[in-house]
Amino acid sequence: MSDLEALKKEAALRAVALVQSGQRVGLGTGSTAKYAIEELGRLLQTGELQGIVGVATSKASAELAREVGVPVEDLDPRPLDIAIDGADEIAPNLDLVKGLGGALLREKLTEVQARRLIIIADHTKLVKQLGEKAPLPIEIAQFGFLSTIERLREFLPGGRLRMVGAGNFVTDNGNYIYDAQLPEQFDPAELERRIKSTLGVVDTGLFLGMAERAFVAAPDGVQELER
Amino acid sequence: MSDLEALKKEAALRAVALVQSGQRVGLGTGSTAKYAIEELGRLLQTGELQGIVGVATSKASAELAREVGVPVEDLDPRPLDIAIDGADEIAPNLDLVKGLGGALLREKLTEVQARRLIIIADHTKLVKQLGEKAPLPIEIAQFGFLSTIERLREFLPGGRLRMVGAGNFVTDNGNYIYDAQLPEQFDPAELERRIKSTLGVVDTGLFLGMAERAFVAAPDGVQELER
Repeated sequence: MSDLEALKKEAALRAVALVQSGQRVGLGTGSTAKYAIEELGRLLQTGELQGIVGVATSKASAELAREVGVPVEDLDPRPLDIAIDGADEIAPNLDLVKGLGGALLREKLTEVQARRLIIIADHTKLVKQLGEKAPLPIEIAQFGFLSTIERLREFLPGGRLRMVGAGNFVTDNGNYIYDAQLPEQFDPAELERRIKSTLGVVDTGLFLGMAERAFVAAPDGVQELER
Repeated sequence: MSDLEALKKEAALRAVALVQSGQRVGLGTGSTAKYAIEELGRLLQTGELQGIVGVATSKASAELAREVGVPVEDLDPRPLDIAIDGADEIAPNLDLVKGLGGALLREKLTEVQARRLIIIADHTKLVKQLGEKAPLPIEIAQFGFLSTIERLREFLPGGRLRMVGAGNFVTDNGNYIYDAQLPEQFDPAELERRIKSTLGVVDTGLFLGMAERAFVAAPDGVQELER
């Protein structure tokens, strides 16, 4: 394991240390969230945690959770005590871009119900402004997707339909992803409203005002950031 | 065929009379739209129309069109010359509620591209204010649907998840439908924005400012209404 990988794992462990016995925990998706799920399984096995229920943001995370012994339930309207997930970009105010893993809608639907959303990531995800490094994933209906992309290109001219191999990437919800390049200057809340109101759009990877705290693996250790 | 049924068919024929050879035609979904598709097939067979391409708003309409000899293509970004479809409610300004048939998203995605949207219906669909008779169908993601319904109930307290037999109704896009009771007074554009911006919502059955003309079967004949 590289030093940064070891620090990503440490960041995940710091996040999982916030989980208490009996809590309902949102389980994120991706390479760092994986460490958190494994650690939850370990703590349940040693008995340091008891009575945890996981609510997974993707089929992959649900499978991993079951493998490591974390009981998994479907999302229902009850609040989650805490959710732990990665992010693709983290702004100074902890606004996020998520969804490079393709689970943005399920992540947002789950994490909006969490009393606390804790982000774990490495320092390459820190940006001054969202869109600096990563595209913004936008989940769109398959039907009429070319027209939906044309509507999006009117105000987000850069971007492309996400492919996997020779085919279009399909989300767990049966939708496509358009990865949009963000402009240099924009108001995140206004952009979110405009994208979401576009016909054919299901949701965006902008997570605004949701994260409470982030543990970020950097070369000199794990930084803790608060909103 | 009852008198009203005969008049519904006449309304469909009046709409199809607006179609010209070589046009790309949006094909609606439902009992009245069925008459229009059959008439298009007949006119192609007699040679009165030539070179029509249909773009269907549902799997059912695509199948019917093929059966009656109307060539069908998938929606692409090119505009449609005309679209002909039913509606569940028609306001005096031709704002519509659609989607009782469950095809609201595909209908909206298709018909927004039509230069002319022609509505065919019977007079029981005419209302002074949308929501008088029919619920507003709202297409929502399956994942987390109970929470999405709770978010909708904050401002649309009446309503229910659409069932079919003992199961939940699933749209062609793999989503659920929440049939919401509309309030007595509301601003349609504002309500549309609020619903569409709700997390988990894919689209609504409000079709505002889209229809150009309606042919309405009434006991005393077919009325023609313009926006």
